[in-house]
Amino acid sequence: MKLREVGEDKLLDQLLPRLPLGKTVVAGAGDDCAVIEIFAGRNFLVLKTDCIVEGVHFLSGADPVDVGWKAMMRPLSDFAATSALPQFALITLIASKQTEVEWVRRLYRGLRRAAKQFDVSIVGGETSSSSGPIVISVNVAGFVERARWMSRRGGKVGDDLFVTGQLGGAIKQKHLRFIPRIAESRWLTKHFSIQAMMDLSDGLGIDLPRLARASKVGFTIETENLPLAPGAKIGDAISEGEDYELLFAISPRQSKRLQRAWKRKFPKLALTRIGQLHQTSNIKHQTLPGGYVHFQQPS
Amino acid sequence: MKLREVGEDKLLDQLLPRLPLGKTVVAGAGDDCAVIEIFAGRNFLVLKTDCIVEGVHFLSGADPVDVGWKAMMRPLSDFAATSALPQFALITLIASKQTEVEWVRRLYRGLRRAAKQFDVSIVGGETSSSSGPIVISVNVAGFVERARWMSRRGGKVGDDLFVTGQLGGAIKQKHLRFIPRIAESRWLTKHFSIQAMMDLSDGLGIDLPRLARASKVGFTIETENLPLAPGAKIGDAISEGEDYELLFAISPRQSKRLQRAWKRKFPKLALTRIGQLHQTSNIKHQTLPGGYVHFQQPS
Repeated sequence: MKLREVGEDKLLDQLLPRLPLGKTVVAGAGDDCAVIEIFAGRNFLVLKTDCIVEGVHFLSGADPVDVGWKAMMRPLSDFAATSALPQFALITLIASKQTEVEWVRRLYRGLRRAAKQFDVSIVGGETSSSSGPIVISVNVAGFVERARWMSRRGGKVGDDLFVTGQLGGAIKQKHLRFIPRIAESRWLTKHFSIQAMMDLSDGLGIDLPRLARASKVGFTIETENLPLAPGAKIGDAISEGEDYELLFAISPRQSKRLQRAWKRKFPKLALTRIGQLHQTSNIKHQTLPGGYVHFQQPS
Repeated sequence: MKLREVGEDKLLDQLLPRLPLGKTVVAGAGDDCAVIEIFAGRNFLVLKTDCIVEGVHFLSGADPVDVGWKAMMRPLSDFAATSALPQFALITLIASKQTEVEWVRRLYRGLRRAAKQFDVSIVGGETSSSSGPIVISVNVAGFVERARWMSRRGGKVGDDLFVTGQLGGAIKQKHLRFIPRIAESRWLTKHFSIQAMMDLSDGLGIDLPRLARASKVGFTIETENLPLAPGAKIGDAISEGEDYELLFAISPRQSKRLQRAWKRKFPKLALTRIGQLHQTSNIKHQTLPGGYVHFQQPS
């Protein structure tokens, strides 16, 4: 059955009752706005939107369950970067009238699974038709304790740079099935003074200069120390993107204790010191070989 | 200049410093997530996302300033429906690499103007490339006092039904330049016990049955009383959509006082009693002649 043969209301009637909903959700999908009870206390509200486009972020033949998973997990990876707890998501689906309803159902299965993994309520969204490629946009709201809020800005000269997991090779392997490092990020900010943090989505070669620029410092990377995914080369680790690992800066005084505690807490996930932050003027070449930049690719 | 000739970071560098930002914004566009200081008190968090697609919601030749205005004002119209105050917006732009940078700049001018009109901070967003039509998705977060939260659900048998402004003809005229009825909605919930409310986006013929269904009641409409826009016929007022006026239910005991007070407060904007809510079983034909349904249109 095609989307054009089903009314929007009818499709939503099928999809909405199955969305995960937390207890603080007063009104979820189906009304004009999602409405949520808040207990602010000493928290910041955290907002993020992210979209994936057919042919750019996933291939037309990809399993829609995987596509839904990726669509939800990408903004959640930004919550990991911020050390925030995601709580509420809104889904926007832009699809052609030719799209199979079964495809949409499987997409939502992936979205729901990913949301449940991190106790995220899906509280609303929208569908619209288009003659172009399918677009799924996921908007997430949540909270972070003031003292645990992480940004790219706080890196200091002399800080050690760490990455979680392995870099490179994601496009062939895990980019549709990755798990955002929320648990790791929350543990890090609970037990250590992390100075600056971000997630690696466009590739270390693009993302690290962004962190350095935001922190107004320079950096050096020991490329021979980069944790490579099986089959990946140094160039892949720097420029492929889609790793969704954490990159963070921490005072070298805490590095040793961090590495020991990490091994006990996350024995299956690598944590690697890859370099250091420096004064800007000490560094001649700050730009790593180019990663993925959306509008600069050959078309 | 085309988008593909400008890096994403470079484009954002130009656009970000000009975004409107309120004092509670801790981190806006440019970091992984937007971060906002909240003072919850007795408020609900309100979330809404809405997108417009080239060729569906606006024509390719439309003035991008108007397109940006409409993209922002549509979700704000849902805030009016909820009687909530919008505060923070995230923008997602999906455009082809052939899109003129000047077009994007003018789009943002419209987005900014619309945001400023209601003191909304633009705190982040995303750009992505696509081979298809341009898509602009706007996600808005804000708050409503618990006691003033409006939904479609509270309509009671016997309530009078009112609409603001005039219906029909919007597609030829105001759909790119409308002003969401936030001020009117806030005034209504401050001074009266509104039972149920929504905004008219798909047309009275689609939207009123939704309010009635959510309130578990039926309705009658006095079609001869519908406030018609100049040149519009009754059928247009019922089925064209894009009116972005308020539809609400109020106890008939408050109707007279409401009409008198409204005339003093909003002398330039019509307020019209168009019908009543009834018991479901009393009504035989609850569905008005069809309004605009996204996936049921001829393709």
